[in-house]
Amino acid sequence: MYKILKKDGSAKRAEFQTVHGVIQTPVFMNVATVAAIKGGVSTEDLEGIGTQVVLSNTYHLHLRPGDDVVYRMGGLHKFMSCNKPILTDSGGFQVFSLAKTRRIKEEGVYFHSHIDGHKLFMGPEESMRIQSHLGSTIAMAFDECPSAKAEHEYVQMSVDRTTRWLKRCKAEMDRLNGLEYTVNPHQMLFGINQGAIFDDIRIEHAKVISDLDLDGYAVGGLAVGETHEEMYHVLETVVPYLPENKPTYLMGVGTPANILEAVDRGVDFFDCVYPTRNARHGQLYTHKGKLNIKNARYAEDMSPIEEGCGCPACRSYSRAYIRHLIKAEEMLGLRLCVLHNLWFYNHLMEEIREAIDEDRFDALREEIIEAYSENDQADRDSSSHEV
Amino acid sequence: MYKILKKDGSAKRAEFQTVHGVIQTPVFMNVATVAAIKGGVSTEDLEGIGTQVVLSNTYHLHLRPGDDVVYRMGGLHKFMSCNKPILTDSGGFQVFSLAKTRRIKEEGVYFHSHIDGHKLFMGPEESMRIQSHLGSTIAMAFDECPSAKAEHEYVQMSVDRTTRWLKRCKAEMDRLNGLEYTVNPHQMLFGINQGAIFDDIRIEHAKVISDLDLDGYAVGGLAVGETHEEMYHVLETVVPYLPENKPTYLMGVGTPANILEAVDRGVDFFDCVYPTRNARHGQLYTHKGKLNIKNARYAEDMSPIEEGCGCPACRSYSRAYIRHLIKAEEMLGLRLCVLHNLWFYNHLMEEIREAIDEDRFDALREEIIEAYSENDQADRDSSSHEV
Repeated sequence: MYKILKKDGSAKRAEFQTVHGVIQTPVFMNVATVAAIKGGVSTEDLEGIGTQVVLSNTYHLHLRPGDDVVYRMGGLHKFMSCNKPILTDSGGFQVFSLAKTRRIKEEGVYFHSHIDGHKLFMGPEESMRIQSHLGSTIAMAFDECPSAKAEHEYVQMSVDRTTRWLKRCKAEMDRLNGLEYTVNPHQMLFGINQGAIFDDIRIEHAKVISDLDLDGYAVGGLAVGETHEEMYHVLETVVPYLPENKPTYLMGVGTPANILEAVDRGVDFFDCVYPTRNARHGQLYTHKGKLNIKNARYAEDMSPIEEGCGCPACRSYSRAYIRHLIKAEEMLGLRLCVLHNLWFYNHLMEEIREAIDEDRFDALREEIIEAYSENDQADRDSSSHEV
Repeated sequence: MYKILKKDGSAKRAEFQTVHGVIQTPVFMNVATVAAIKGGVSTEDLEGIGTQVVLSNTYHLHLRPGDDVVYRMGGLHKFMSCNKPILTDSGGFQVFSLAKTRRIKEEGVYFHSHIDGHKLFMGPEESMRIQSHLGSTIAMAFDECPSAKAEHEYVQMSVDRTTRWLKRCKAEMDRLNGLEYTVNPHQMLFGINQGAIFDDIRIEHAKVISDLDLDGYAVGGLAVGETHEEMYHVLETVVPYLPENKPTYLMGVGTPANILEAVDRGVDFFDCVYPTRNARHGQLYTHKGKLNIKNARYAEDMSPIEEGCGCPACRSYSRAYIRHLIKAEEMLGLRLCVLHNLWFYNHLMEEIREAIDEDRFDALREEIIEAYSENDQADRDSSSHEV
């Protein structure tokens, strides 16, 4: 399913075959938590912004509209009218970051809905059943994401349980894929490496999960409070222990510079809320760094957000107009900003793929890191994960 | 400029030539108050929903971003990237409905900004200068819109002043259109008939303004608290006194039934906030009346909002999905509802034009009035005017 086409140092240029189409990697997945991208972006808009993969959320869709509803509507692809590969997060991260008063047991997690407070339970089997109902292209394993500040002892205990949960996930998914009325009998499963910032736990866990021969492997538990340097160190430490013939997914990361650094360490898949969340604050990505469209200097600037950009916002609208819309709190302003930022991220990945193809990945990496060196700090202070 | 192609009773099928293209009437203008349609609808979306004319607002654009900014950006068409005819309201209605602590004098109106409270003045010349800066296709005269409950004496005094203001508007527009750096030297001026529900004042005013040989005539001061029957009576009374060789515009109206009844009384142009505002509340138009997409019965309904509808929402998305988006307060839900409702209104006008062409306007009128007889009341209770 996964085929490396080219390498440039440790950076991999590959393609990943799925039942919903071939994914060119490295790839950025566009976050559509509750089956819609924030900012009024429809699945019809996705072609125009170069989206390859959509990411939706097990926890949120289980609560609303309910995975049983989505199942009866024919699965998530039909429900949201999307013909692209969809990856569903397992709900684990949301159970641990969003839900109230949770209790973790061997069987799974007891918690309360963040919407109406009612009691819920999710374990490996429940997460797999929900994701099977959704019929996503790729399902993520149900795991615990311990705090970056957790002690070695707790992290070891947690990761051991996550391993046992992963085995239950795999068994349950095999069972579900074999059922007669399964939405997507070819649903794939990615395991998740955990271990906080402890090299020994990360490496041992990577070895154990690699033996399970899953469809792909994620590095989780990063971008949750550790420094960028710690994150890069974990990637350098753990990626070599994950199977090279499977895709590697760095969850919830990150800034353009983070992505370049992670590709340089062998990562294929990314997702992050920055492009949509920054759009909400008028923060727009360009190859020269971010600009804040609310700035008075753009009030009479008839040039596009970025010269040469082919996104739907830059093709038709000026900085002056978009600034006016954002100041007037018109929804179109947010929509144009989201379209631009997602286009930027999707095409940054395209530039990365071309650079690897042409053995000039290092030059691109340095250029982008230089452009973003000044305003990376702002991103570091807010969570990059969908919650 | 205005050519009647066909009549069916008093209903007129015509076309109106403008410097930004030919308008087929009867027509519904799509409200883009601050140079954007509510709900994240871009000018790129307008082709897909059959928009012929966009309506923007003098008062709002004067305050933000400032008509001087729009002028320096090359006018409203260039600023908002719109190649269709744009009509600008004069700001009169907003000064009287939205601004605080206003004082009406012969020279114009002193008032305070609804945004930051700063002191402002607008008279006929100021309104014309702002609209000239915006460079709209059609400018509206600056008028006072007296309350539907105002006394005969006040209305007479107000209408006399509005007539004097109209003459000043015409003189100022002639001057502005002759200036070297005017954005649109072919800008047209529509006068506005007032007189509340007093036949004698309405008729006398219609006669006086008809003599001024303007590009078109609006009936203002309706849908401001009077009954539908009073509104229809005013139209029957006044339209015969307006020039038949000029377009007639009923401002801020209304429901599908209102529009059919007004076309039946000789009206060509309409605008109303109902399609966008009702979208916000999940109220969607169909040929069988309105439906509320929030209703539980649509939770698992995979059919489109209306079978056979060609709007961007109905072409790709189901009632179940749109209901989910609205319940989850996802912006895409609102956007799809607005696109549907504007498509409905724009295509209702197309159906009206075809029915007049084919001498079956009465049958269409009865069909739509019947479909909307039950839920018209809800609309009657909220203002139909952009404010």
